[in-house]
Amino acid sequence: VSRADHSPAPAGESAVAVLGLGLIGGSLLRKLTDVGLPAVGYARDPRTRTAAREVGLEVSDDIDGALAGRQIAVVAVPLPAVPTLFDATVGWGGLVTDVTSVKGPVAALARARGLRYVGGHPMAGTEQSGFAASDTALFVGANWVLTLDDDTGLDDWLALARIVLRTGARVVATTSAEHDRAVAANSHLPHVVAAALSTAAGENPLALSLAAGSFRDATRVAATRAELTAAMCGGNADALRERIDDLIARLAAARDVLDDDALTAFFEEGRRVRAAWPPTAGGERSIPIADPDLRSALLAAGRVGAPIIRADADRLTLADAA
Amino acid sequence: VSRADHSPAPAGESAVAVLGLGLIGGSLLRKLTDVGLPAVGYARDPRTRTAAREVGLEVSDDIDGALAGRQIAVVAVPLPAVPTLFDATVGWGGLVTDVTSVKGPVAALARARGLRYVGGHPMAGTEQSGFAASDTALFVGANWVLTLDDDTGLDDWLALARIVLRTGARVVATTSAEHDRAVAANSHLPHVVAAALSTAAGENPLALSLAAGSFRDATRVAATRAELTAAMCGGNADALRERIDDLIARLAAARDVLDDDALTAFFEEGRRVRAAWPPTAGGERSIPIADPDLRSALLAAGRVGAPIIRADADRLTLADAA
Repeated sequence: VSRADHSPAPAGESAVAVLGLGLIGGSLLRKLTDVGLPAVGYARDPRTRTAAREVGLEVSDDIDGALAGRQIAVVAVPLPAVPTLFDATVGWGGLVTDVTSVKGPVAALARARGLRYVGGHPMAGTEQSGFAASDTALFVGANWVLTLDDDTGLDDWLALARIVLRTGARVVATTSAEHDRAVAANSHLPHVVAAALSTAAGENPLALSLAAGSFRDATRVAATRAELTAAMCGGNADALRERIDDLIARLAAARDVLDDDALTAFFEEGRRVRAAWPPTAGGERSIPIADPDLRSALLAAGRVGAPIIRADADRLTLADAA
Repeated sequence: VSRADHSPAPAGESAVAVLGLGLIGGSLLRKLTDVGLPAVGYARDPRTRTAAREVGLEVSDDIDGALAGRQIAVVAVPLPAVPTLFDATVGWGGLVTDVTSVKGPVAALARARGLRYVGGHPMAGTEQSGFAASDTALFVGANWVLTLDDDTGLDDWLALARIVLRTGARVVATTSAEHDRAVAANSHLPHVVAAALSTAAGENPLALSLAAGSFRDATRVAATRAELTAAMCGGNADALRERIDDLIARLAAARDVLDDDALTAFFEEGRRVRAAWPPTAGGERSIPIADPDLRSALLAAGRVGAPIIRADADRLTLADAA
């Protein structure tokens, strides 16, 4: 018996189908069920469906059964599996979102199928994966990007934001292009660098043997499965290419001042940024949902990294950085 | 009353002066005192001398008093203070070592003063510094590089190796040039990259706001004081310049295969190296000290990252990697 069977949908809240029950999808279905939102899951592997039912979740044996009568579908599978799941939602008519780490290419997949789509990217994860690692606390305090492109319906965006806020996450509004540039800088580029640093040190056994904390941390993500990293970085090739070129220019500039007082300034600039990270929460402010410029106000907030932390009936509350 | 006063020097072991009682020097003096080696400390700051005496260490109020009657001086101060301390040992006649992270430039300082010198670099440290952070366990299991250059006396090197092994560290033999290339790859380059990644992300508030684990780890050392990092990297400029150029070439190659199957191979190579790090201990083997090729045998072992883990009267025992 699933808990969801006994939780009536709160007025105005959408019923959610979570397609894919790995770490992200499993954690989402558990959390939505916990907070009393009507939610059903689907996983391709029957063992995962059994495991999910065993912890009291409502699970469908097929995708159509999961979608029927629901308003929102969360496609919670890795990028290579997204097209197949998107295909399965064609003609259903509800709102589709995803949880992958690139947004422009996925928006193009949705557009090509004529889906009602809002791109999503929860900035949460662990080294683990699979339903067994799922955790209702995974999203608490995490940023969850929802893309707001020119062709995104604002009502769809708001409906999804209300669902995401129920997980404990904070919602960041941004365009697909701005998202992809940001994750190229803060995630995909560090993955490329980690691999290059690791391979370079690998040619020098003494370097590997003497390596300590700075090497350990700089290369940690190089231990990720190569297929996953390649899919993630290759999926964001255009934005990542620009970030690699930018980094090469910065490294070349550092190389030219190694004998110089300017080297301290180079390190001081990095120190200043890193010491101020992560940004601490500053004041809160709210935006009326009736604001005729709501779309641009949301995007402006996202651009300075201010997430939405609460949605009331008539207004959204944002947290500015300090 | 210091413990050292009551510990007779074991036959054949040298008495040690530790000049500088910060994290490294303080930990070393405490450990040598604990294991019953005759050791005395000196620190410029009288409060540090008082703190060291309060935990039972023997401390001299001046450098000459610390050196008098001792055979080995460990100059345990940051690179900018090394020349002054080296000057103070001129004419004393004992064996001088240091604990800084570059070896070629420090060897040149020692050579210019005609010192009997063996370069040292313990691969141990924490984010903390100062005598208050000192810890007798700091060196246990850590690699401690001792440089063996063409002009290094083999007997001096062996005498120092015996002292270092008493701290629980493992001794790695290498030339100054090989050491500096290795730390350029495994430490100085990661510091340069961390600063560049941090500064680049700093230009994009959305990127900072969405940054998670890969950014956190890739940039952790960027939070280090800029003067320290600049001194460390600038002190190893020649070796570091080559490593930066090498990394730039690797990044450019990755950029050119972002749309390509070769991207998986790029990440797989990094994964393979990182997954095998840190190297696990394999078998042990020993080298007779009477071996006429002892010098080249030690350097060959260092080159493959095999540290010395034990010194008996007639032989050294090495641990090979698995």
